[in-house]
Amino acid sequence: MKHPTHLDELINTCHWLGQRGFAPATGGNMSIRADADWCWISASGKDKGSLESDDFISVRIADNHASSGRTPSAETGLHTLLYRLYPQASTVLHVHSVNATVLSRLERRDTLTLQGYEMQKTLQGQTSHLDAVSLPIYDNDQDIDALAKRIAQSGNALHYGFLLRGHGLTTWGETVAQARRQLEGLEFLFECDLRLRALEKQ
Amino acid sequence: MKHPTHLDELINTCHWLGQRGFAPATGGNMSIRADADWCWISASGKDKGSLESDDFISVRIADNHASSGRTPSAETGLHTLLYRLYPQASTVLHVHSVNATVLSRLERRDTLTLQGYEMQKTLQGQTSHLDAVSLPIYDNDQDIDALAKRIAQSGNALHYGFLLRGHGLTTWGETVAQARRQLEGLEFLFECDLRLRALEKQ
Amino acid sequence: MKHPTHLDELINTCHWLGQRGFAPATGGNMSIRADADWCWISASGKDKGSLESDDFISVRIADNHASSGRTPSAETGLHTLLYRLYPQASTVLHVHSVNATVLSRLERRDTLTLQGYEMQKTLQGQTSHLDAVSLPIYDNDQDIDALAKRIAQSGNALHYGFLLRGHGLTTWGETVAQARRQLEGLEFLFECDLRLRALEKQ
Amino acid sequence: MKHPTHLDELINTCHWLGQRGFAPATGGNMSIRADADWCWISASGKDKGSLESDDFISVRIADNHASSGRTPSAETGLHTLLYRLYPQASTVLHVHSVNATVLSRLERRDTLTLQGYEMQKTLQGQTSHLDAVSLPIYDNDQDIDALAKRIAQSGNALHYGFLLRGHGLTTWGETVAQARRQLEGLEFLFECDLRLRALEKQ
Repeated sequence: MKHPTHLDELINTCHWLGQRGFAPATGGNMSIRADADWCWISASGKDKGSLESDDFISVRIADNHASSGRTPSAETGLHTLLYRLYPQASTVLHVHSVNATVLSRLERRDTLTLQGYEMQKTLQGQTSHLDAVSLPIYDNDQDIDALAKRIAQSGNALHYGFLLRGHGLTTWGETVAQARRQLEGLEFLFECDLRLRALEKQ
Repeated sequence: MKHPTHLDELINTCHWLGQRGFAPATGGNMSIRADADWCWISASGKDKGSLESDDFISVRIADNHASSGRTPSAETGLHTLLYRLYPQASTVLHVHSVNATVLSRLERRDTLTLQGYEMQKTLQGQTSHLDAVSLPIYDNDQDIDALAKRIAQSGNALHYGFLLRGHGLTTWGETVAQARRQLEGLEFLFECDLRLRALEKQ
Repeated sequence: MKHPTHLDELINTCHWLGQRGFAPATGGNMSIRADADWCWISASGKDKGSLESDDFISVRIADNHASSGRTPSAETGLHTLLYRLYPQASTVLHVHSVNATVLSRLERRDTLTLQGYEMQKTLQGQTSHLDAVSLPIYDNDQDIDALAKRIAQSGNALHYGFLLRGHGLTTWGETVAQARRQLEGLEFLFECDLRLRALEKQ
Repeated sequence: MKHPTHLDELINTCHWLGQRGFAPATGGNMSIRADADWCWISASGKDKGSLESDDFISVRIADNHASSGRTPSAETGLHTLLYRLYPQASTVLHVHSVNATVLSRLERRDTLTLQGYEMQKTLQGQTSHLDAVSLPIYDNDQDIDALAKRIAQSGNALHYGFLLRGHGLTTWGETVAQARRQLEGLEFLFECDLRLRALEKQ
């Protein structure tokens, strides 16, 4: 299968992610949709800061079948879930940042709520700091099929993605640029929220 | 209209801002005055770390009218307000830093007061750590015209700029270099002030 | 003696360590095993971010004897201990990071326990966030022979290495890449753990 | 007067300082001794991250007299004080770091005491984490002559330099490399000490 034309843009975003420390110790995984039926996802165990086009594997969105004999990321099922739920999704980014890891453990409820930040407007469809943005948090699971099923059955809107507790953030966009911008916005909001919680609780 | 000669210096400062993380996810906006009547401001939605001269749009200071058909930053009205209030202002920088966002929410009063720091002397006209520096904080608003009017009517001195709550910092200078130095000094002071608040309140 | 072929890989890892700030002010030391009897370790007092192959000295694993007249790192005895205990160990990294220093003092018990983090899976043999990972902590000592003896006699498993209180982290791997990945994973977990302790105790 | 041969080494250290954020917004000043009677110090108001040899001015150690008509740093008197007190001093570095600023305000006593850190051994003459290292803290003053006199009259040992409250750190070495190493070690210790204070007080 031929690489999709926007794979280079995804690879640039992976390098940026790596430099920012969002995918330490080969953690995280990233994908783009090729068409209605197939997506390309990073191979398991690679350093995300130095990915090349050969490090991506084509996977069928319907059933996670890899077209080659190679092993895609163990978390492929979370990417294809988003491609099935949102036909407009073109890019999925899953990162292991310190802020996403800590905040998803600190917040013991099933939703992180962000309000009062101008930077909420970097999230898809948001237009005002006055609105409350909700990001679902799911308990982590090593059984990705079970986890994907649990997320699908929760019926939560996943417009900006979701957090896995003690694990990381998954977000998506209609373009690579939008997914990256939303990731950068969410990470900024997580950092602000953690600092405010530390200072306001005292 | 021809680009002002100091636009390159502003662009260098924008790249520095981007690298420092002060304008994440295409946030923030920057401008320079061309003459008594016109300024040039960054276009909406651009990554500030990679701005080029074509990404700036000329706007009339009196009424925010853009000379071309292009869309200047949504926050143009806050830049032109400062150019009207301070005829000596040549540069306005508006950033979305974590520290400005968090500190403007943590401080519930309408003024942030900084005292006891040698680095206060990086602010225009300040000569001693013994003086108290006041930076007005305004509640954020998506209606920029209303916000600009509220700031103008407050009658506060805006020598070092102002904070928008949960939004960011706006500062200005008589030269690009002075605006940049003042921004760097204020960000340093915000970082120190946040750390001291966390440690002293315990 | 001829340099082992994977010394270049270790040097690259040392440069990465230096850039990450894990070996400030010439602190830390790094080694690789050449064969069953000899290892090569960084010389004392060198900046780890700019090490070259001539900065490594061959040392006999059995008794810390240096084959040349040069002085290996004062902490050589901790490296050779790990090479004796674990025949599969090919690389030992000892770093002076802020997080390892602070966390090993904050935790007053003799073990640091990490649980609930997806990133535990970056540690050798770990497969689930549900397991508890134990990292022994030893009180610091300027007498390295006595310290190595105390560590050996503790009988603790040192699968991921150990912490020295107020001093730093020592970790190892079967390859340079694995040691580096484990170090990056542990540093990530230390950062998360410190942030969670600060926020949860309030 | 001819530039001293080790000026290039100092300039490299200034660039490193600038990149590390220890001299923001043109803050800080650095010098080397040329001989028993003269030193060279950075000019006022320059960005320390991009200093060149022409940005240094020769000053007489006995009375702060500048050999040229140019204006040396306002804090020249603190550099010459150290050159008079310590004939072996060849380099003086004065930085405005966040940690030095915050810690010198948080510690209300006249001495910062550091103990239990392996990294204390990066300080001149220190050999064990068991010893207590004392760093004098002086209240800040805009009158540098008065401040220098107060420091001299305090009779404190200034082996590692001193802190100015809310202002920064001044340290020195017998070589440029030693001064830089000691600065890096002290900044590491300040960072650790601030984090431990935040976590232990809770």
